[in-house]
Amino acid sequence: MNKKIPVGILAATGTVGQRFVQLLADHPWFEVTVITGSERTVGRPYGEGVNWKLLGEPPPKIANLIVQPTAPGLGVQVLFSALPTPEAKELEPAFAKAGHIVLTNASPYRMDPYVPLLIPEVNPDHTGIIPHQRETYGWEGYIVANANCSTTSVVLPMQILHQAYGLETAVIVTMQAISGAGYPGVASMDILDNVIPYIGGEDSKVESEPRKLCGTYTSGKIQLADFVVSAQTNRVPVFDGHLGSVSVRLKQSASSEDVIALFQQWQPPAVCRDLPSMPEPVLIYRPEQDRPQPRLDRDAGNGLAWTVGKVRPCPVNNIRFLSLAHNTLRGAASGSVLNAELLVNEGFITS
Amino acid sequence: MNKKIPVGILAATGTVGQRFVQLLADHPWFEVTVITGSERTVGRPYGEGVNWKLLGEPPPKIANLIVQPTAPGLGVQVLFSALPTPEAKELEPAFAKAGHIVLTNASPYRMDPYVPLLIPEVNPDHTGIIPHQRETYGWEGYIVANANCSTTSVVLPMQILHQAYGLETAVIVTMQAISGAGYPGVASMDILDNVIPYIGGEDSKVESEPRKLCGTYTSGKIQLADFVVSAQTNRVPVFDGHLGSVSVRLKQSASSEDVIALFQQWQPPAVCRDLPSMPEPVLIYRPEQDRPQPRLDRDAGNGLAWTVGKVRPCPVNNIRFLSLAHNTLRGAASGSVLNAELLVNEGFITS
Amino acid sequence: MNKKIPVGILAATGTVGQRFVQLLADHPWFEVTVITGSERTVGRPYGEGVNWKLLGEPPPKIANLIVQPTAPGLGVQVLFSALPTPEAKELEPAFAKAGHIVLTNASPYRMDPYVPLLIPEVNPDHTGIIPHQRETYGWEGYIVANANCSTTSVVLPMQILHQAYGLETAVIVTMQAISGAGYPGVASMDILDNVIPYIGGEDSKVESEPRKLCGTYTSGKIQLADFVVSAQTNRVPVFDGHLGSVSVRLKQSASSEDVIALFQQWQPPAVCRDLPSMPEPVLIYRPEQDRPQPRLDRDAGNGLAWTVGKVRPCPVNNIRFLSLAHNTLRGAASGSVLNAELLVNEGFITS
Amino acid sequence: MNKKIPVGILAATGTVGQRFVQLLADHPWFEVTVITGSERTVGRPYGEGVNWKLLGEPPPKIANLIVQPTAPGLGVQVLFSALPTPEAKELEPAFAKAGHIVLTNASPYRMDPYVPLLIPEVNPDHTGIIPHQRETYGWEGYIVANANCSTTSVVLPMQILHQAYGLETAVIVTMQAISGAGYPGVASMDILDNVIPYIGGEDSKVESEPRKLCGTYTSGKIQLADFVVSAQTNRVPVFDGHLGSVSVRLKQSASSEDVIALFQQWQPPAVCRDLPSMPEPVLIYRPEQDRPQPRLDRDAGNGLAWTVGKVRPCPVNNIRFLSLAHNTLRGAASGSVLNAELLVNEGFITS
Repeated sequence: MNKKIPVGILAATGTVGQRFVQLLADHPWFEVTVITGSERTVGRPYGEGVNWKLLGEPPPKIANLIVQPTAPGLGVQVLFSALPTPEAKELEPAFAKAGHIVLTNASPYRMDPYVPLLIPEVNPDHTGIIPHQRETYGWEGYIVANANCSTTSVVLPMQILHQAYGLETAVIVTMQAISGAGYPGVASMDILDNVIPYIGGEDSKVESEPRKLCGTYTSGKIQLADFVVSAQTNRVPVFDGHLGSVSVRLKQSASSEDVIALFQQWQPPAVCRDLPSMPEPVLIYRPEQDRPQPRLDRDAGNGLAWTVGKVRPCPVNNIRFLSLAHNTLRGAASGSVLNAELLVNEGFITS
Repeated sequence: MNKKIPVGILAATGTVGQRFVQLLADHPWFEVTVITGSERTVGRPYGEGVNWKLLGEPPPKIANLIVQPTAPGLGVQVLFSALPTPEAKELEPAFAKAGHIVLTNASPYRMDPYVPLLIPEVNPDHTGIIPHQRETYGWEGYIVANANCSTTSVVLPMQILHQAYGLETAVIVTMQAISGAGYPGVASMDILDNVIPYIGGEDSKVESEPRKLCGTYTSGKIQLADFVVSAQTNRVPVFDGHLGSVSVRLKQSASSEDVIALFQQWQPPAVCRDLPSMPEPVLIYRPEQDRPQPRLDRDAGNGLAWTVGKVRPCPVNNIRFLSLAHNTLRGAASGSVLNAELLVNEGFITS
Repeated sequence: MNKKIPVGILAATGTVGQRFVQLLADHPWFEVTVITGSERTVGRPYGEGVNWKLLGEPPPKIANLIVQPTAPGLGVQVLFSALPTPEAKELEPAFAKAGHIVLTNASPYRMDPYVPLLIPEVNPDHTGIIPHQRETYGWEGYIVANANCSTTSVVLPMQILHQAYGLETAVIVTMQAISGAGYPGVASMDILDNVIPYIGGEDSKVESEPRKLCGTYTSGKIQLADFVVSAQTNRVPVFDGHLGSVSVRLKQSASSEDVIALFQQWQPPAVCRDLPSMPEPVLIYRPEQDRPQPRLDRDAGNGLAWTVGKVRPCPVNNIRFLSLAHNTLRGAASGSVLNAELLVNEGFITS
Repeated sequence: MNKKIPVGILAATGTVGQRFVQLLADHPWFEVTVITGSERTVGRPYGEGVNWKLLGEPPPKIANLIVQPTAPGLGVQVLFSALPTPEAKELEPAFAKAGHIVLTNASPYRMDPYVPLLIPEVNPDHTGIIPHQRETYGWEGYIVANANCSTTSVVLPMQILHQAYGLETAVIVTMQAISGAGYPGVASMDILDNVIPYIGGEDSKVESEPRKLCGTYTSGKIQLADFVVSAQTNRVPVFDGHLGSVSVRLKQSASSEDVIALFQQWQPPAVCRDLPSMPEPVLIYRPEQDRPQPRLDRDAGNGLAWTVGKVRPCPVNNIRFLSLAHNTLRGAASGSVLNAELLVNEGFITS
């Protein structure tokens, strides 16, 4: 790539938006030229308007960009969207209609039958739906969504098992980090010395999104996978990193040794192996009986790798295991960046 | 009761031992007259030898007792045992043989077919095995065990469901407090901003103990319940209170409304309703979608009540719910005290 | 007292308001008959409108009271005010003018020369200013303020030293609990695994309020104490309990042994010894080198006692020590309740 | 440097030892060729013997080294010592006598008049004492110590003020991370929801070490600085990063504007500017009223920079400020690595 592709970030001042800024500041393929933000910050340099919550300082190049209002006509085609749900619902189709390619972290269009819910290592072929999306909705551009951070933390090993043995059911209990709720998010009085066994809307996302992610794309249609998921999501006093405890019933039986070997040998689909942000390895199997742990494993592969462990026979179902991913990196901003890289590789984004 | 029954506490200086001291200091039926402790503390007043970890100060009456070595011949029949596993394994039978009644919090004899694994509200009739224990082993006294704290935190609602509908399987994921590991126990560097998805031996205890607790006593035999449990136990940065996320398959189908009504109407067996430490109510059903929570619910009923909530249909099994109990009170010392009260009520302990 | 004195609570739905509700529900002298709250809750039973954050449930008697708007003419003379600063500033004088006795936890009138900033154990004679307040401002009622929770946590030992040796300077660094910021207050993302070395307005309160509290009342005037305080306040990941590290320079020199003896022998002024909420002892001196600690000492005396420790010579000044008090009990609601009890004892509140 | 200097690490399996391993694995000047460890690990590859507590895995090159017993004759001259205090006291002089250069993180020889207590940015000229150490003790090698991590976190701004205005007194209160106590170190039951206002021996180190660090080296003698320090050290629930709240009295008066300008313009001594591990900048002044914070600032400059803030007039003394440094990096292992780099630059270590 001779010249970087100019991109914009919608709602760049929030928690996920700041991650986009951090991740794209030195990206080899993309260059941030447009930043949008809330009314309070419009017209000011990003570095002044943002209440920077990540380590260090906002990257200087981006800190100097003047914050624009969030509306079509931003002068760049590719947009990373960190918009909150209501704004995303309203504005993202407008952007797509106006010719923008919207890589969104928001939930409203994840389950839309024409929007790919995309994780390159899980379902890269779902990009095939994009032309049908444009045709169906009459949009010049299109929307690609990444999954909810809780779904993301468990879906890769689920897909590997699904492809190898057929997944029948999964009972999932998550222990999720506070950063998943954004800022200010969870009140310290609620979570210090405590667990909150409820995250609004999260159980149903973890129950539905994997069926789309692990579904099959054929000729203009994404067929949902036919397994059933039960999810109970919990907030724990952990800063970053979502941990899922999963028990699965498989269509074709497998021993825990089989599954461990499968996890150890697994390689991501060829089409996504050379993406610049792709970690190596993508999936880490840890043999210790007390791993993965959020604090120790969330930063593996620059926060982009999944760590699995405790693969054991389940007395009730077939196999149980733990899976962990970094919620604001793998499960949010970085996921969209990887999606954009895949789209470049497949010719859906061109400079 | 005109006169209090004298009792002793074995290993009274540890975490569970201190709880026994606290709970028995003003007990209406029992009076602590003997305290045993480690070699370091033998011969010194308890108040000097103990590194008191509970709020306030050791109760003055007990603080002045001289710590004895842990060996039969202590001059009281009833002993509350907070012995660590290896010592419990070796010494508790010796005490029982010598005529002592041992109410133990330790694990070695929990699954012994002649030792009642007892929770008054769950299986009060299991005391029927006591005469058979004495006869079989040729002991003058006997051993009664309370359950592991993790088992305890979930087993009451399991038994209620089992008795009403028949339990077929249960998939349990726990989020457990650091105090469950005793002192010093969990290193702060391991648990701050983290979850440890492993507690030594705990998964198998939660998988086996409920089958005995919910089993049937008939004519000298405790028949294990025939359901199957899958348990994955986790340590979280919470001081007190074990929370379990449970998904069950029932033999006879039930709606979540049925189960909620069952939990709301449930009353403990008549034989244990008037025990002095029995909380009222024993089982608290909370309708909020984000309860129970360890910090808010662990102290309900002086730390002796169970709190259940989030009773919902399970897409994979039948019903799922959350259950919480205070691990060092309900799940440890107080459990043994309630057991002793039941034994008094049933004539197994006499003054 | 034959009949309880009816009282009201202003802004009873917030964090401090809930504490008032909890503390006054079974008070021997006072009976809550009026509750006010935000617009959202007006007209509904308190138990429905409140988002109860304390353990257990709202006391039934008060839960059934209908929430009133916060405006004079509430039908009770004595009002406990948990109003936020701006509302307190505007409304409390209006209540006092209308004949109400306002016991406020808010800051606006703490440093008013005619408003007693009152802690019964510290400066009970400052109530003498009340008639002058009424006369000066032409109010039928009056305002009595309690101190900021950070000030409170350190001021009692300061006053004891001031009265014994004369205080010249104090350098204070506090480590304060998250509950001091109310709910939702401190974001968990800000305080987990962190210290925030700033609490808005708190440094200056701790520097000014002790001078008034330790000041001298004579003939219609409170003369500020002439010592100088430097305060740097910090938020730490602790739920309840403010800890202050204090180094003082004394006018008349004293050894650490002198000061320890002074703390051990100190008794509160006779006028406040028999108040129903007064703990016994009020001041606890702990000889251990690692006390006081927030989790272990905050609940001493039902959260109403101060705990001091680590009394040592200071290489730079004369003496240093630690002081701890429960911020939402001693430092907020309970402080006002004790003030009301003192006012009853001194005849400023009559039934 | 054409060829790397071979070095050894003493007690490489502990917390500080692991940091040495991590820091030296890819060092441009040094190559780890020798590793020593406890009896349990001797004879095994380091990667097998160590209970790795840092993120990721032990560096492969070092993981394969066979652990040696800790005794002179290790075949490398330069040794980084992470020995515990008693072993350090006994063994480090033996190593120095045998010709080794010992860069120690341990405390026993820090205040020895002939051992430089060295921080390159603070007192690089104190290396001048090395020849006198060798001569006085008859050693072929020598010992260089780094400071206690608490001292380190505050001493750089103290030295800058001392050199500019003359320091007369400092009152210091620290809030220190749990990692400072090593592993397992602080029990979670002691520190969750708590502050421990005591760290064994730490107060006196912070009171004495700055006087040596800020002292003057002339002709074979380190003259202690004549200021007086009062320190009260506290443990808080923070993983890494020690924060100090400092109030100083200066010999020559200065405004907070003066001090801020001084901190902003300060540059480290020329002799240490080009050391490979030296961060740029070394000292970061943050203007925000709520900084530095451990979680946000500890990793500045790869954990090697100091962050200062809240420079304000002190009502009691002259100036107060906050200072923060990463305790296990800047305050421990990295400090020794920087010392070694300085010694290479000054010719005290040669390849």
